[in-house]
Amino acid sequence: MTSQPLRITIWNEFVHEREDPVVGKLYPDGIHGAIAASLREKLGEAAEVSTATQDQPEHGLSAEKLAATDVLYWWGHAAHNDVSDEVVDRVQQRVLEGMGLVVLHSAHDSKIFKRLLGTRCSLRWREVGERERLWITAPGHPLVSGLPSEYIELPHAEMYGEYFDIPQPDDVIFISWFEGGEVFRSGCTFTRGAGKIFYFRPGHETYPIYYDPNIQQVLANAAMWARPSGVTYVGECRNPQESLSPIEKRD
Amino acid sequence: MTSQPLRITIWNEFVHEREDPVVGKLYPDGIHGAIAASLREKLGEAAEVSTATQDQPEHGLSAEKLAATDVLYWWGHAAHNDVSDEVVDRVQQRVLEGMGLVVLHSAHDSKIFKRLLGTRCSLRWREVGERERLWITAPGHPLVSGLPSEYIELPHAEMYGEYFDIPQPDDVIFISWFEGGEVFRSGCTFTRGAGKIFYFRPGHETYPIYYDPNIQQVLANAAMWARPSGVTYVGECRNPQESLSPIEKRD
Amino acid sequence: MTSQPLRITIWNEFVHEREDPVVGKLYPDGIHGAIAASLREKLGEAAEVSTATQDQPEHGLSAEKLAATDVLYWWGHAAHNDVSDEVVDRVQQRVLEGMGLVVLHSAHDSKIFKRLLGTRCSLRWREVGERERLWITAPGHPLVSGLPSEYIELPHAEMYGEYFDIPQPDDVIFISWFEGGEVFRSGCTFTRGAGKIFYFRPGHETYPIYYDPNIQQVLANAAMWARPSGVTYVGECRNPQESLSPIEKRD
Amino acid sequence: MTSQPLRITIWNEFVHEREDPVVGKLYPDGIHGAIAASLREKLGEAAEVSTATQDQPEHGLSAEKLAATDVLYWWGHAAHNDVSDEVVDRVQQRVLEGMGLVVLHSAHDSKIFKRLLGTRCSLRWREVGERERLWITAPGHPLVSGLPSEYIELPHAEMYGEYFDIPQPDDVIFISWFEGGEVFRSGCTFTRGAGKIFYFRPGHETYPIYYDPNIQQVLANAAMWARPSGVTYVGECRNPQESLSPIEKRD
Repeated sequence: MTSQPLRITIWNEFVHEREDPVVGKLYPDGIHGAIAASLREKLGEAAEVSTATQDQPEHGLSAEKLAATDVLYWWGHAAHNDVSDEVVDRVQQRVLEGMGLVVLHSAHDSKIFKRLLGTRCSLRWREVGERERLWITAPGHPLVSGLPSEYIELPHAEMYGEYFDIPQPDDVIFISWFEGGEVFRSGCTFTRGAGKIFYFRPGHETYPIYYDPNIQQVLANAAMWARPSGVTYVGECRNPQESLSPIEKRD
Repeated sequence: MTSQPLRITIWNEFVHEREDPVVGKLYPDGIHGAIAASLREKLGEAAEVSTATQDQPEHGLSAEKLAATDVLYWWGHAAHNDVSDEVVDRVQQRVLEGMGLVVLHSAHDSKIFKRLLGTRCSLRWREVGERERLWITAPGHPLVSGLPSEYIELPHAEMYGEYFDIPQPDDVIFISWFEGGEVFRSGCTFTRGAGKIFYFRPGHETYPIYYDPNIQQVLANAAMWARPSGVTYVGECRNPQESLSPIEKRD
Repeated sequence: MTSQPLRITIWNEFVHEREDPVVGKLYPDGIHGAIAASLREKLGEAAEVSTATQDQPEHGLSAEKLAATDVLYWWGHAAHNDVSDEVVDRVQQRVLEGMGLVVLHSAHDSKIFKRLLGTRCSLRWREVGERERLWITAPGHPLVSGLPSEYIELPHAEMYGEYFDIPQPDDVIFISWFEGGEVFRSGCTFTRGAGKIFYFRPGHETYPIYYDPNIQQVLANAAMWARPSGVTYVGECRNPQESLSPIEKRD
Repeated sequence: MTSQPLRITIWNEFVHEREDPVVGKLYPDGIHGAIAASLREKLGEAAEVSTATQDQPEHGLSAEKLAATDVLYWWGHAAHNDVSDEVVDRVQQRVLEGMGLVVLHSAHDSKIFKRLLGTRCSLRWREVGERERLWITAPGHPLVSGLPSEYIELPHAEMYGEYFDIPQPDDVIFISWFEGGEVFRSGCTFTRGAGKIFYFRPGHETYPIYYDPNIQQVLANAAMWARPSGVTYVGECRNPQESLSPIEKRD
């Protein structure tokens, strides 16, 4: 039961860090850099972690790169509409084939997430730095391993509130409470084709959320949970005219 | 608790009936015509049933027509790719707002179904007229009211087999057994936004399936089940800066 | 499509109203009386509403009474353990056969709810009269018809918080926000056999919650949603030695 | 990310093997012995596999034994009603706390399975040795790793058919086709509390099914999938009168 290192790619639009000095100071290597460093530390030799950004050719997500990715993390906010449809097609196809996808925070509004879910993924939001408490609603799930028993708390967060326009998740892992009065399904899993998808709400660019130990624990759990498993995906229509079992002749 | 008549639109690409004499003889008024007649008989004054076809302007699905439709039935096979993306956008939006959608047989491969589900909706198939038995797996569901207790049977059917590449349904209503050796989730419900979706497998154009009393019963049940209910859909992102409950000032 | 009146039975342990003057003053006819009055007003001739209480012979739930009940509402708190196992067996059997069950507030800890769910149904709780806001997370569901679009609010409520130890619901209709910092899945649907179950959190005996118009609307919706439908329940093992389709002789 | 060996206990009622010479010859070390041998070979040092049988004191499932079990396999058929309720209580509690449970074949009718699911778990059945084909309906699931892409086949099997009276599974992994005309949800997952449950249909005592390489692969996958993870189970009601966030004083 030895296994190859998990091939993880952290994708980031990488806009706010270069345009907003507050964000740039908080994430000097980009949000992707902070997440990559955390995953490298937590997963060690079990994973090979690389990054890709929107300004690269093909957004850093060539067919070759995606074929060599087991789990893709996705952070975007300011430039969703500049992601090319061709790359979205390609990522969707790879998810259906079995690549894991971890969708972070404002990427609820990304083309790839809306493509895979079929809904608008709209929500309420408010940015005043209020308190958030993420209650665990699936205590036996691998995604919450290593966390405190009942909840994790963030002192300052952007608020996202219901109704969150998504199809029913496979599992709701966290439900957030916000100081200002809203709730939100902050950790949701989905399966599309052979691919596992995890949406995880925390991660606003103006707060040091990706340095929080509990958040880092969830991100590391996500890699292990979303890794490909199962059987070869049969995504084409198949037309075997020869039946497996005999068919009675009738008129 | 009196209510307005349910406004039902049966949409059909209406190609096979005009190109293939066998189909034309079986469905002289088109598949849409046969389904409309059956629904009118079964639902009586509870429904107003109209039809629309792909060859009409805007495929018969103008914004006005869709706004005046509570439940839309969709049959297509030969001309999926000729359906305009603009009409697909419009139907998707109306489903999210609450319009019911009943997706029939080969429309598993329609643009609108794949758009709403986010997967390829691919499957196995074989056309030799084998026996199909649809086992009821959700005996308390409104969709099976009026049927025999355990299963319904069709003497001749096109085979559709697993793996059917769809997200996990809300409920699996029927699982089909096929003589040649396959199984299929033949009745599946989904919710997207405020809209209810029912995929129902039977209905190949060369068999008299839409004249079968049990199939007609399911189609009538579907109208009642998929009708809009609930609250006004909030599909836009909302940004209420004023919080509902007070937020503690902190630094 | 005319139909018989829906036969509704409201069951209440009826203890607090007779032992605690505050509760007795709030609910002079018992919680069951208040709910029955509200359902009679809202459903009119569509329903026949009766009540039953724990102090009656067989707790008011004889085999005859249950056979003549389409939807049963259940409120209990102080005397869960005094409900006889025989009556619990009988109610469970009727739910599997298709009777609807609406489980209210502290009945999360009733024998019948734990019997049907298989888990402990435990939760966090605090009784200080804090504010509760129930966010709608299933906007197209019949259970929320007639409500405001986004949420309903109760100025004073007992708090119930996650982790709520229940199996994954079919649908989560409401998620509550509590002023003191917790969240809760306050409206949950389940199917067991042919029976539909709705758990609805609000309803503490010391607050006038069952007089709230929105709460009354949900209770009326619940009757219509949970009514029996579908096909005759096949709850026994069946052993048809004769196969439906021919079996090849092999050695 | 090193880990302790997984502690697996295979429980068997161990009746047929000692009473029926055909079964005794097929499974000379009991069904539990055959499964244990297969798991030891497949999982190697990743697991410590032991067995327990119904004739032992406390059915071999003392509190100490269960506390030292990560995943419990359960095979029973002839003696379900002789399993003591005390042991059933204990196993249920351990599942809620996070112990995995793999329920095999005729254990669909065991006390522990019905206790955890809340339904009758009844089904159709026929014992004529017909062909079974298990179609994979969740291609990305860890439970199907290492299998062929589309289906696995058993030349001779007892038939189990729908309607199978279970709550909606978390995932349906396999749907079986039977030669005689029925279908069955043959691989189903459930979560109860922090515990993962896998029901796996194949395994009749008169056929050599537990020697089939594909079946053995699924059984090994089940151990890894059902192992405890997540956080400490909070199964008691909790009553923190002190709120986490401040509550406004109102009258």
